Amino acid sequence: MIETTFPPDYFIGIIGIAVFAITGVLAGAKRGMDLFGIVVIALVTALGGGTLRDIILDAPVFWLENLHILWIAVIAAIAAFFLEDYFWKTYKPLLHLDALGVALFNVQAIDKTLALGFSPAIAIIMGIITGIFGGIMRDILTDRPNLVLKQELYATPILAGGILYVLMLYLFPDAGVFNTISAIAVVLIIRVAAIRWNLTYPKWLLFAGKESQ
Amino acid sequence: MIETTFPPDYFIGIIGIAVFAITGVLAGAKRGMDLFGIVVIALVTALGGGTLRDIILDAPVFWLENLHILWIAVIAAIAAFFLEDYFWKTYKPLLHLDALGVALFNVQAIDKTLALGFSPAIAIIMGIITGIFGGIMRDILTDRPNLVLKQELYATPILAGGILYVLMLYLFPDAGVFNTISAIAVVLIIRVAAIRWNLTYPKWLLFAGKESQ
Amino acid sequence: MIETTFPPDYFIGIIGIAVFAITGVLAGAKRGMDLFGIVVIALVTALGGGTLRDIILDAPVFWLENLHILWIAVIAAIAAFFLEDYFWKTYKPLLHLDALGVALFNVQAIDKTLALGFSPAIAIIMGIITGIFGGIMRDILTDRPNLVLKQELYATPILAGGILYVLMLYLFPDAGVFNTISAIAVVLIIRVAAIRWNLTYPKWLLFAGKESQ
Repeated sequence: MIETTFPPDYFIGIIGIAVFAITGVLAGAKRGMDLFGIVVIALVTALGGGTLRDIILDAPVFWLENLHILWIAVIAAIAAFFLEDYFWKTYKPLLHLDALGVALFNVQAIDKTLALGFSPAIAIIMGIITGIFGGIMRDILTDRPNLVLKQELYATPILAGGILYVLMLYLFPDAGVFNTISAIAVVLIIRVAAIRWNLTYPKWLLFAGKESQ
Repeated sequence: MIETTFPPDYFIGIIGIAVFAITGVLAGAKRGMDLFGIVVIALVTALGGGTLRDIILDAPVFWLENLHILWIAVIAAIAAFFLEDYFWKTYKPLLHLDALGVALFNVQAIDKTLALGFSPAIAIIMGIITGIFGGIMRDILTDRPNLVLKQELYATPILAGGILYVLMLYLFPDAGVFNTISAIAVVLIIRVAAIRWNLTYPKWLLFAGKESQ
Repeated sequence: MIETTFPPDYFIGIIGIAVFAITGVLAGAKRGMDLFGIVVIALVTALGGGTLRDIILDAPVFWLENLHILWIAVIAAIAAFFLEDYFWKTYKPLLHLDALGVALFNVQAIDKTLALGFSPAIAIIMGIITGIFGGIMRDILTDRPNLVLKQELYATPILAGGILYVLMLYLFPDAGVFNTISAIAVVLIIRVAAIRWNLTYPKWLLFAGKESQ
């Protein structure tokens, strides 16, 4: 996507794609996968969510006309392949950059969906799909437990930020960048808190599953 | 979809979506999944099939403009989360409502596909995709064996009803509701029989798999 | 797809679809799957890649208007079901026909993507998606390790052929069939060599995975 709602967007967007690709490789790759496989899972992680969003909205898929996004993801994947040791050492800061990327892409997805004339509820859902579908597809491809099965707070910050953002757009239609920054901040803060303190839902919001295994 | 071919359609459709969401949670959720994950698998189960159908046909995805469908699925998922015990007690009747939903959505998918100008064979396939893809995606997300791997008769009743329906539309183009009801009845009867007596394909239609594991 | 770039295309395309369906069943089916499940995995294997390509490009999905492709895949699947023994005996020649199919569909996907006005890089990617996505989906549906997890050289020949093809189209825009045949030959030769000698990437292009499992 990386359309400029406000100037720093473009650079955060580029960094976001690169970080998604790198964390995608670190979290998804398995010993012995070849370089081609590594690039595939990086692309799926970094571009999968936005691709599904655009397909559902029947909008042109964002990377078709923005090849540089593709190249950045490919280069980041190759870097992650050869510099695995280095990136593992910076994994914690990378996770925070990942959170920033998710927060930004959420706002961009909502802006894009609203601009196409869809309702705020659809826009919030598109923010979530953009943020989580790539990682889910990566986990399915690499046979790992995906987001839906884990208790990690990854999607909920996006939902909270999305609800706040569409509310603010409605209440303060002229606030511009202020709304954008607020929505990004909310996602970032909740997500970083979740990373720091391993936050999960409270027990009464976890499925009892009495008859399931 | 829930376009009204005939009046009761709308209400059966609403019930169908809610039941899909509830049976999706009961069949797919695992102990410890959080409420967000539960809602995701309910939405995937209830809306996944129709979503893929509309994407393949390049038609507007049905829930984008029908937000109430989305809300019903979300509310049903939350109900299934908190009232799990109650719904397990009514699981058998729920399975029959699920069959009714599948039967109705099959007819609606065929009507929609034909109205878009595609051939009867494509319409039958779209009925099947609408009926099974959501459940398959749920099983992949929750790491359970999916329909393709199981012998349960779930898709075959849809196929039988679909073939009958397009034949009747061809032979009795003016029969209207009568065709609809016949097609729904056929799916419902075969599916309910399959549930009651655990019907499967006869042994000679099960893969011998001599060299596969 | 099976649009005729040059006359033999049509027949190779038909054979390619049938072979994809048959090898899809042989490689994917498990003992006890019913005939319906077998046909589903054959269709997914044979048509999945081209379907995703068309959806991403927002082009009409190729089999919607070419029902004979669908029938060929269905008939081939049923044949593979009942004649499993026979097809296992011819598995090696089938793998070579599969390579020919992949090589041809790669060129067709690139032609189609370029004709829609997309860049050569996108065209190369669409060739790869067309060639690998169906098999990946089959492996996910049947709970087998997919391409991304294996070291088999399947996608890399497609990439090599794709790069060569767009380069030749650029350098020799009037060479016509000569370009097509060269691109098909390159994919076929590398792929057949990979099958014969179990070629993989060299060790330094396999993921070290020091911290992953």
